[in-house]
Amino acid sequence: MKFNLRVRVVAEFLGTAFLVAAVVGSGIMAERLSGGNVALALLANTIATGAALVALILAFGSISGAHFNPVVSVADAWEGGLTWRETLLYVLAQISGGIGGTIAAHLMFRLPLVSLSQHARSGPAQVFSEFVATFGLMSVIWGCSRSRPGVTPFAVASYITAAYWFTASTSFANPAVTIARSLSDTFAGIRPADALPFILAQFAGGMAATFMFRWMVPNLPASAANVVVRHGAAE
Amino acid sequence: MKFNLRVRVVAEFLGTAFLVAAVVGSGIMAERLSGGNVALALLANTIATGAALVALILAFGSISGAHFNPVVSVADAWEGGLTWRETLLYVLAQISGGIGGTIAAHLMFRLPLVSLSQHARSGPAQVFSEFVATFGLMSVIWGCSRSRPGVTPFAVASYITAAYWFTASTSFANPAVTIARSLSDTFAGIRPADALPFILAQFAGGMAATFMFRWMVPNLPASAANVVVRHGAAE
Amino acid sequence: MKFNLRVRVVAEFLGTAFLVAAVVGSGIMAERLSGGNVALALLANTIATGAALVALILAFGSISGAHFNPVVSVADAWEGGLTWRETLLYVLAQISGGIGGTIAAHLMFRLPLVSLSQHARSGPAQVFSEFVATFGLMSVIWGCSRSRPGVTPFAVASYITAAYWFTASTSFANPAVTIARSLSDTFAGIRPADALPFILAQFAGGMAATFMFRWMVPNLPASAANVVVRHGAAE
Amino acid sequence: MKFNLRVRVVAEFLGTAFLVAAVVGSGIMAERLSGGNVALALLANTIATGAALVALILAFGSISGAHFNPVVSVADAWEGGLTWRETLLYVLAQISGGIGGTIAAHLMFRLPLVSLSQHARSGPAQVFSEFVATFGLMSVIWGCSRSRPGVTPFAVASYITAAYWFTASTSFANPAVTIARSLSDTFAGIRPADALPFILAQFAGGMAATFMFRWMVPNLPASAANVVVRHGAAE
Repeated sequence: MKFNLRVRVVAEFLGTAFLVAAVVGSGIMAERLSGGNVALALLANTIATGAALVALILAFGSISGAHFNPVVSVADAWEGGLTWRETLLYVLAQISGGIGGTIAAHLMFRLPLVSLSQHARSGPAQVFSEFVATFGLMSVIWGCSRSRPGVTPFAVASYITAAYWFTASTSFANPAVTIARSLSDTFAGIRPADALPFILAQFAGGMAATFMFRWMVPNLPASAANVVVRHGAAE
Repeated sequence: MKFNLRVRVVAEFLGTAFLVAAVVGSGIMAERLSGGNVALALLANTIATGAALVALILAFGSISGAHFNPVVSVADAWEGGLTWRETLLYVLAQISGGIGGTIAAHLMFRLPLVSLSQHARSGPAQVFSEFVATFGLMSVIWGCSRSRPGVTPFAVASYITAAYWFTASTSFANPAVTIARSLSDTFAGIRPADALPFILAQFAGGMAATFMFRWMVPNLPASAANVVVRHGAAE
Repeated sequence: MKFNLRVRVVAEFLGTAFLVAAVVGSGIMAERLSGGNVALALLANTIATGAALVALILAFGSISGAHFNPVVSVADAWEGGLTWRETLLYVLAQISGGIGGTIAAHLMFRLPLVSLSQHARSGPAQVFSEFVATFGLMSVIWGCSRSRPGVTPFAVASYITAAYWFTASTSFANPAVTIARSLSDTFAGIRPADALPFILAQFAGGMAATFMFRWMVPNLPASAANVVVRHGAAE
Repeated sequence: MKFNLRVRVVAEFLGTAFLVAAVVGSGIMAERLSGGNVALALLANTIATGAALVALILAFGSISGAHFNPVVSVADAWEGGLTWRETLLYVLAQISGGIGGTIAAHLMFRLPLVSLSQHARSGPAQVFSEFVATFGLMSVIWGCSRSRPGVTPFAVASYITAAYWFTASTSFANPAVTIARSLSDTFAGIRPADALPFILAQFAGGMAATFMFRWMVPNLPASAANVVVRHGAAE
């Protein structure tokens, strides 16, 4: 069953809002409680983010495909899964949802609604990290959606859990989340000036993975979103 | 197969008792061992709670639906899944089970059977946190129970794992658990005076999510409990 | 398909050996690395134990039922799943496998083959903890094996992960493992004098849960072991 | 559906590269952030590695079988699953992929492309640990691939998560990863002189487990890789 576009866009908004609230909120909580131990703070931030991804992709996957990420939606459009009009609305919902998530997290922790981050994340190694992070993310998505779409939520959450630690940038891998995190001067923040190189590297990594899987698995399903929906229905 | 009401009520009592014992007991253990490092204590508390939810929902889901939470039972009644008489018995079992869980935890750790918590958790940010926490919890439940009920145990446990960190209140999200935790002057406690605003915010958040999903997914199954049972039978 | 008894007994021996090696070995590693932070050591010990249970039950479940625990085998015999002769051989394999696991862990960490633990774990609260721990463990096993046997490995591992923290005894819940841990004067050890009360409480808790589920779910399958095998075959 | 050999070899290269990047990269991040607390660093390293394995095996399993490990490929060849020519190409892809993963991790963290590790890991206890680690790994793989191949990714990842802690060597259990880690003078490194005894013990452990399962479960499927593919297609 295909949901109408309005419902799917609301699902993308809500899911991305909760995802960013989880990333930013758990970062605030972790930094407050960890007494300066950054490894412990990042570990808590990691576990909260990975767990949120499992829950949110399972909850919204059958409605909108649970992209929550402009790179995923654009790659899906490229493969014929979304029209470009749908893609535009998805991306707008993701960006505004992400900003809503930052605001919600700030409200819960009694901070100003938004605050420009001063957390510098720049340089070629950081940008290369985002390329690798998003290349891996899209590889995992295409790899699973082809053969076992039912496990995609677990694969994506596990991938991001790992990538928080194995990339030097802690794996943003998501332009909407990057924008939202630039508006939070907290643990998870990123300086607005550093956001654009991150976003460009994310799209480059996602496109490279999509090209590679087009060669590796030519009979890609038309749409990652559709696959999830169909799977949900069939199960 | 539908179990008779007495068995289902016993399942709700036992499941909620074990859930609260896990929350309170692991909080006591974590605080004792962590030498004042609150982040580490909350991390252990989180992992224990999330793991307990996986085990308990899988164990009791096919019997009673594994609500363990008055917000879930009332929402289910609202959608036609439980009669109001069943709902009343479910809620009484959850509250008394929760209190039993606190007592069991205290017995295991050689503490007085009950003790009123002095842990202040008040103010608009805390109450808003509970609204968000329960809104998200019910969204995850309705989102999964519609399309993939077999994964609900993992989605709910993952959601609570994340919400312990991304909400400022550590996500009680459950009136029966809130009452039970008010009777434990330990790590997981809440001052009895702060319990009512929490509970009201929890019901408000759960109702809002239920309304939203009624619009998003009109053909909601009649009962979350039934879906789990049917799924268990079909698998 | 039913495996012949010799192969099933070898599977019980190997699985219990690896389980105890995981419990004892990770305790040694965690204590060595954690610099006196007991919460951190127990957290590592918990994650290693839970993960080992997932892997070992999945690997050996279809061969022997992956009991690795005399309480489980006796309860299964009680319900008609194993003959008493099979049960005796299972229990002997579990006990000798457990001791083998302690020896293997000691060899890996360059310790004497066995060493009597001096870790005191006594008193009514500790014994009550073991009753609760094993009551919960058998409830989870009977609850899952009836309706969704395929998830039992995840439910059992999650339950033990939680119970390491919410019981005051860190949830041994297994007589074979208790005996094996009495022979290791390391983090996971238990004084031999304290083992018998633990074991009695474990059997009492397991029997109570079995009685309770006999009332709650009268049409229990004949054998937990068989159910796992059948499930594996059907999947 | 069987993929052509070139695609499968690329999948082995990519998967092993990401696996090693996860092991080495998360080790670097963990050591930098943990302020000398080795238990905390290893815990982060463990969680990242286990999560990476879930994601990568799910993503590439249906293409190449997701061996990422010469011991697995050789054992599979031994059981008739791969031809020896395929095995040679798999192993070369795994070794070169592993080295590529080290280089990628070093680039992300602004380190020299390769650096010989000075981390001593020698002696009979370390070598015995690798025998045990790989014996267990291959037991888990053969145990699952026979009856429930769909859960293999979770079983393997859980096993390695546990074995990082319960073996004294932190469970390399993989010759390609061992070679790649010898080229990284960071947290996860191993002195090149210590690599060969590790690799020999890994093959010995893997072969012993394969022999044992040949006796325990004579009707082993012809190929672990094929089983995964067939499972993916059927699901």
